[in-house]
Amino acid sequence: MKIHHVGVAVANLDEGIALYTSIFGARVTHRATVEGIEGAFLDLGTAELELIAPTRPDSPLSKFLADRGPGLHHVAYAVPDIKKALSDAAAAGLELIDTEPRIGLHGVPIAFIHPKSVGGVLTEFVEI
Amino acid sequence: MKIHHVGVAVANLDEGIALYTSIFGARVTHRATVEGIEGAFLDLGTAELELIAPTRPDSPLSKFLADRGPGLHHVAYAVPDIKKALSDAAAAGLELIDTEPRIGLHGVPIAFIHPKSVGGVLTEFVEI
Repeated sequence: MKIHHVGVAVANLDEGIALYTSIFGARVTHRATVEGIEGAFLDLGTAELELIAPTRPDSPLSKFLADRGPGLHHVAYAVPDIKKALSDAAAAGLELIDTEPRIGLHGVPIAFIHPKSVGGVLTEFVEI
Repeated sequence: MKIHHVGVAVANLDEGIALYTSIFGARVTHRATVEGIEGAFLDLGTAELELIAPTRPDSPLSKFLADRGPGLHHVAYAVPDIKKALSDAAAAGLELIDTEPRIGLHGVPIAFIHPKSVGGVLTEFVEI
């Protein structure tokens, strides 16, 4: 079974589309309305699911689990140059959690963007 | 920019892996530990991001936004036979929100699985 899509709730669809097409370079593949919901689909390529668990009680992930329980945590985007991606994000007004890249689970540089800048979605850049 | 992965918080990594490999047929591509977090990566193919907004105040999505604010909402899996996927899921002990498929935003049959059955992740099947 493969992931078909990841659903992100937005209060206003046009504002959501503007965010993802301008900041993340996504392309709208189609748009539809059904049963009280309107949706837009953005082509985002091949993805993995990453399961993450804390290994110590003072990890930020332990706080997340205590506050909200298990579940969807973040979406990560592959970027060719993470320092440029961070400076572009900062220039676009996004609040960076990591102003400098650090090494993540894949052994390559990563950095997180604050969810309040990205419609409530904790967002990660991965330099690939 | 392409999605690299979707992060899902789990309290116990082995239990999370067991869920996703048994129910969703995912394959672990690698496993790593860094900075208080251990993670496992599951190959899940090509994905889209779906932005969804309510079109009426009594939509379940309106309640989601009122309760939790905008953000990550669900993960959808492509399945070749949704009725079989639902009966397999029910047989595996998962709680179905939709016991019968209905037509979703893509114009094809969809059905939702209760998040409490899937480690806090609202999960959708899409018949493709």
